[in-house]
Amino acid sequence: MAAESALGFPVIAVNEAQTKHLFDNRYGTGQSTLDGILRATNLLIAGRHVVVAGYGWVGKGIAARMAGHGALVAVVEVDPVRALEALMDGFTVMTVSQAAPWGDLFITATGNINVFRREHFALMRDGAVMANSGHFDAELDLPALREMAEGHVREVREHVLEYDLGGKRIHLIAEGRLVNLGAAEGHPAAVMDMSFANQALCAEYAANHHGDLENTVYDVPPAIDAEVARLKLAALGVALDPMTPEQEAYVRSWQHGT
Amino acid sequence: MAAESALGFPVIAVNEAQTKHLFDNRYGTGQSTLDGILRATNLLIAGRHVVVAGYGWVGKGIAARMAGHGALVAVVEVDPVRALEALMDGFTVMTVSQAAPWGDLFITATGNINVFRREHFALMRDGAVMANSGHFDAELDLPALREMAEGHVREVREHVLEYDLGGKRIHLIAEGRLVNLGAAEGHPAAVMDMSFANQALCAEYAANHHGDLENTVYDVPPAIDAEVARLKLAALGVALDPMTPEQEAYVRSWQHGT
Amino acid sequence: MAAESALGFPVIAVNEAQTKHLFDNRYGTGQSTLDGILRATNLLIAGRHVVVAGYGWVGKGIAARMAGHGALVAVVEVDPVRALEALMDGFTVMTVSQAAPWGDLFITATGNINVFRREHFALMRDGAVMANSGHFDAELDLPALREMAEGHVREVREHVLEYDLGGKRIHLIAEGRLVNLGAAEGHPAAVMDMSFANQALCAEYAANHHGDLENTVYDVPPAIDAEVARLKLAALGVALDPMTPEQEAYVRSWQHGT
Amino acid sequence: MAAESALGFPVIAVNEAQTKHLFDNRYGTGQSTLDGILRATNLLIAGRHVVVAGYGWVGKGIAARMAGHGALVAVVEVDPVRALEALMDGFTVMTVSQAAPWGDLFITATGNINVFRREHFALMRDGAVMANSGHFDAELDLPALREMAEGHVREVREHVLEYDLGGKRIHLIAEGRLVNLGAAEGHPAAVMDMSFANQALCAEYAANHHGDLENTVYDVPPAIDAEVARLKLAALGVALDPMTPEQEAYVRSWQHGT
Repeated sequence: MAAESALGFPVIAVNEAQTKHLFDNRYGTGQSTLDGILRATNLLIAGRHVVVAGYGWVGKGIAARMAGHGALVAVVEVDPVRALEALMDGFTVMTVSQAAPWGDLFITATGNINVFRREHFALMRDGAVMANSGHFDAELDLPALREMAEGHVREVREHVLEYDLGGKRIHLIAEGRLVNLGAAEGHPAAVMDMSFANQALCAEYAANHHGDLENTVYDVPPAIDAEVARLKLAALGVALDPMTPEQEAYVRSWQHGT
Repeated sequence: MAAESALGFPVIAVNEAQTKHLFDNRYGTGQSTLDGILRATNLLIAGRHVVVAGYGWVGKGIAARMAGHGALVAVVEVDPVRALEALMDGFTVMTVSQAAPWGDLFITATGNINVFRREHFALMRDGAVMANSGHFDAELDLPALREMAEGHVREVREHVLEYDLGGKRIHLIAEGRLVNLGAAEGHPAAVMDMSFANQALCAEYAANHHGDLENTVYDVPPAIDAEVARLKLAALGVALDPMTPEQEAYVRSWQHGT
Repeated sequence: MAAESALGFPVIAVNEAQTKHLFDNRYGTGQSTLDGILRATNLLIAGRHVVVAGYGWVGKGIAARMAGHGALVAVVEVDPVRALEALMDGFTVMTVSQAAPWGDLFITATGNINVFRREHFALMRDGAVMANSGHFDAELDLPALREMAEGHVREVREHVLEYDLGGKRIHLIAEGRLVNLGAAEGHPAAVMDMSFANQALCAEYAANHHGDLENTVYDVPPAIDAEVARLKLAALGVALDPMTPEQEAYVRSWQHGT
Repeated sequence: MAAESALGFPVIAVNEAQTKHLFDNRYGTGQSTLDGILRATNLLIAGRHVVVAGYGWVGKGIAARMAGHGALVAVVEVDPVRALEALMDGFTVMTVSQAAPWGDLFITATGNINVFRREHFALMRDGAVMANSGHFDAELDLPALREMAEGHVREVREHVLEYDLGGKRIHLIAEGRLVNLGAAEGHPAAVMDMSFANQALCAEYAANHHGDLENTVYDVPPAIDAEVARLKLAALGVALDPMTPEQEAYVRSWQHGT
């Protein structure tokens, strides 16, 4: 919208705050996605083939938690830098077509649409399970899935729909909506506190500086990010060293060094 | 009972089968304990101080899953070999008294009684959470806890009791009973299948061999253990190599070798 | 030898001591195998396809360390229980023929012979690297490898031989001998201390009890195992709780309990 | 220098390329730091208390590899966001003064100076080991260390100096210079290839666009970053999906979505 001059007021991109996306997206969604899937299915994750689509902060969090439960994790990505990062983090990188027949459990976290489509559903195993933890239920091509099932859809557990594609069954958790909200309780309070602190402090900042702000998108001021992290650590009883004056001077200077 | 000649019939120790304790106790209880704690509390595990009491197969499974969620894990053990194993697996080893003021979340898996007692409750932080995943609710000295709370006990979430010890609150999940059964659904089917297969095949074995068996405790016959694992792998589509005849001969002989 | 009454004196199986195989075999060999491979090759392990043959204590240690460096690990096993354990630890389980074209780096730890043979060398990629961390250089069929190279063998780095199989090169570290001894310094002192303590205390035990011992194989007395672990923990400054008298009584009794 | 208008020509910050710092700094330095320390000391890492100073990409890589070897890792940081990230990654966060008496092995990766100083050396244990993997040997206050040792310095292994502080010995690897270069072989070729590809493509870019560039610091053009990653993946045989035209349109638009 900023690029098209369609913004009617200044915006601070609170979702891009470090104390938001590094924590809420990664640790919050990572845990709560697994939580939602366990509540809905009670599947054993150890030894399971899990496909994570998208290796942004959310995908990184989900992949880490699945690996932390003993899953064999494959990552699907369109971005080569992220794909390489997934590989060097120890995950197999696959195309969607390679992943479809390999996976037991598919989780989308791309922010895009129709990641798994008709041709991929056709390749999946009997008993495959799909969940979405990205932005909303468009990450899976659900109209195609419904069409393929020709009405053979039934609820097999709370929050789990089984689509019978003629001898092969595909399970969908929480109707493809956000699985951590649909089948669990969303993020723990201990990570939402930071996201909300960011929003509150940025709202205060916008109120105090509105005269200086244009109708465009601003980053969260670094001082707010640091303050949120500092408050969180203090609440957890973790002490940090300040830099010494000598160190402060050193990092500001280019005249010393390698 | 065998030592005291108190057994009235032969017993096969199915719980000691490799395909039972290596899988059910470790991967099953590891996952379902975490599942129960998340359902009951929705606590963020990342960065949390988690104390695991007991480093047998159950404790190993719980410690691994907690670490896999980003917890800082401390292990309490009375057995020096297991304590050393916990240390070299990357966990801090503490005494109960050291762990009590350090922990945010305490999980017992010892098979013993009164692991956390009055003097430890007195050292715990406000907000500490306790759960049991060992054998039964005697792992925590609950009578002492009740006494210390002097009736100030209330349910703060489903399955979570808060004991108010005069300004300090301690939370108990599932009344100290097995947390994976009390607050979640117990083990996933994909690990119980092996435990039940063991029981069925051992029952068949006992029926077929009862004439040869005395009133004592037998190990699960290794062939049954191997068969259960082989069937499980086959069901998962995993192929194994047999040993070549040359390899079979080699492992049986002591005349080759180092 | 015991089975064939070929032992001329009593034997205590010190290699089977818990404070030996749980530590020396797993943490010692795990680390020193990786150390030897890095010294010999300076390969980046992250994102690399690593095949571990054998999932005993040595193989478990190697697989854990390789995964801890970001490798994608596949395990080859003949034993179904161990294969299933590898799978639920998050590793892909493959047959040797499946692993050969997939792997970048192959490490044997089976205690058996000819794990990788002519037909597997034929399937490997150009640039594949092989090392042995099992018992000795018979785990790889080196005569076949030499024959296939028809004399096209050269040292490309210290401890690394390149076998040119007509356009495809296979690299062998330390001539297939134990890679941690051949290309690094063997186990760290901090793990050998326990193995040596076991040997010394078992030698003392044999000297003190030789009148009572037959010409067969004995387990390490549990009290020695526990004492070695206790001494090690004390040296590291780690304190353990003793069981309370009440707990001692409880674990000895079958009249309480579930 | 840019801030002080002291640049005499345009600069492209190749070290800030994603395909540089995400890989070279993290996976390259992570592995090679451990490699250097093992070659210099042959210390067992499992169960060891390891202090990592700095949780930037280098520190993250080192902490991950140390944890992957079974170390108990503590992180020292001055930046609250990074400190919180370390905590939620499962590491203990300490001040330098808390870490000094706790650690067995200290590794600096801060880019700053005098992280460990006289007062911290005074708190360290007998046998403590220090190494630097940051920018250069000023991360440790070596003049103070030398003064405290009053000439009692000797080489105890290749690359390891022992400073005797009157009954307490502190060991320094590679004289406090970069430990992966001083005691090992620096980064593996498989990660330097990306850093060099970045430098080459950015030099070409600078040559082709010098007319348009001012004497300031530019980011690496994202297309170069993506191209380096794409080439690397192709060389590793990893295929990626392109976005579908529908997906391309979707991510560019703000009119769809939540």
